[in-house]
Amino acid sequence: MFSGLSAFPLTPTNESGIDEAAFVRLVERLADAGVDSIGALGSTGSYAYLTRAERARIAQLAVKHAGNVPVLVGIGALRTRDVLALAEDAQHAGASAVLLAPMSYQRLSSDEVFELYETVTRSLSVPLCVYDNPGTTHFEFNDELYRRIARLPNVRSIKIPGVPSDTDAARAHVERLRALIPSHVTLGVSGDAFAATGLNSGCEAWYSVIGGLFPRTALAITRAAQAGDRQEASRLSARLQPLWAQFSQHGGSLRVIATAAELRGLVERPVLPLPLKVLQGASRQRLAVLLDELELA
Amino acid sequence: MFSGLSAFPLTPTNESGIDEAAFVRLVERLADAGVDSIGALGSTGSYAYLTRAERARIAQLAVKHAGNVPVLVGIGALRTRDVLALAEDAQHAGASAVLLAPMSYQRLSSDEVFELYETVTRSLSVPLCVYDNPGTTHFEFNDELYRRIARLPNVRSIKIPGVPSDTDAARAHVERLRALIPSHVTLGVSGDAFAATGLNSGCEAWYSVIGGLFPRTALAITRAAQAGDRQEASRLSARLQPLWAQFSQHGGSLRVIATAAELRGLVERPVLPLPLKVLQGASRQRLAVLLDELELA
Repeated sequence: MFSGLSAFPLTPTNESGIDEAAFVRLVERLADAGVDSIGALGSTGSYAYLTRAERARIAQLAVKHAGNVPVLVGIGALRTRDVLALAEDAQHAGASAVLLAPMSYQRLSSDEVFELYETVTRSLSVPLCVYDNPGTTHFEFNDELYRRIARLPNVRSIKIPGVPSDTDAARAHVERLRALIPSHVTLGVSGDAFAATGLNSGCEAWYSVIGGLFPRTALAITRAAQAGDRQEASRLSARLQPLWAQFSQHGGSLRVIATAAELRGLVERPVLPLPLKVLQGASRQRLAVLLDELELA
Repeated sequence: MFSGLSAFPLTPTNESGIDEAAFVRLVERLADAGVDSIGALGSTGSYAYLTRAERARIAQLAVKHAGNVPVLVGIGALRTRDVLALAEDAQHAGASAVLLAPMSYQRLSSDEVFELYETVTRSLSVPLCVYDNPGTTHFEFNDELYRRIARLPNVRSIKIPGVPSDTDAARAHVERLRALIPSHVTLGVSGDAFAATGLNSGCEAWYSVIGGLFPRTALAITRAAQAGDRQEASRLSARLQPLWAQFSQHGGSLRVIATAAELRGLVERPVLPLPLKVLQGASRQRLAVLLDELELA
């Protein structure tokens, strides 16, 4: 399950609570499109903003409505105690795997992060994907830590934060990481703008934000790369450049994809929990035009 | 209450829960020493790692055992919903004021942070101290945001993250900030290494980590600065330079002050929640020697 397109849906959430019906619709949309896995409660799924009970409920709904598609559930939290509890809940809900980012408030050391993964993987009966996302966790993995963590039991994939945009540099980067880790551990690219380059450079998976809302658009890129048609994967990704630019302009993908979900009528407004806000005014208008032009699906 | 020494105690916490008796001893130690206020559930008090119920309990214990010393309670959380609930709990516990940092997972915009403070201050019946700590929140305040937030109802102080180490530059920095905000809002320095320079440069308060464990040492610096004896304040701070160096070496003050609390027998081991770890081995030995040499009290 750690190859191909892993699609990360939003968890529609606001001050009134979680919109479970809207979440179920998003999950069913992904299952219908035939994504390779569904990543519930990723950063796009606002895991960090929800209570343990809310997260358990979302994990249950994702598994129940994903059909035969395996579900990966985010279990990140600031405390090891809470991560262990969330791992139990995810497994109890029937998750096929868990996803763990080293969330931080106090800056973490490499040894602290290693011990976190060691403790959690020891307790698991499902595989784990290491979630490296310094933009939100403020923790920077290094080669030695990749090497040590990838050898822990149950570790099966690493979600890396993008690759260099130059093709040769990207290939060298992926090959270097690949040499650090056992062959049963896959590398999955994230940062949607880097996905085609990452897949073309040897990443086995794409952990995808747009895949969570526009699965057919993301699948087209993924299937082209998997078939060895690098040029087509790159062309399909380059077409979406104006969307990648929006991600950069708005401090990441979440607010843009959340606004897109509202604009397409797939969720009620507002879809994000305060203090987070979706795009307003002219930015929102520009995105609406862009969504039509790009024919995302 | 937003001037002089505000002392921030640890919340002794590990996998077994909170050591309430040890917390009470720390609070009583501060009240006995005559600090000007007690900051419960600051970053040093591990607020970000505790549940709502744990935080409510700590707020109650702090107020109960602080004698006549006013207690400031940290109410930071990733979600506005949770901040509002924590503010209620803190006020219910009898806090004299609250302290709010814009914690983030997704990077926050200035408008989002302003709206957070606007929403929270509107709901409060006690004063609020703005907590600017980019090292943990990963949010950078700017002048315009200081200006807008300082004018909100109930805002009475801003906890700033250090000052330039050069005396003239520090004075210019504090004067520039002072010009942005109303006169009823105080500026309090944090980052203990900067405290003497900050107080000597016009900051009215020191929001202090070492003050939470060694209140007499921190009070000596504070009282010298308040009496206008800048040279003595600087001398007393310079004496502690090896301790400030330890803070830098270990990714901030928390792990060092937590280790110091263990070494002095003021708390049981371990005093921090996993994945956070105190100093081990040679680093721990060096700190033990240093604590004796510096005669901290």
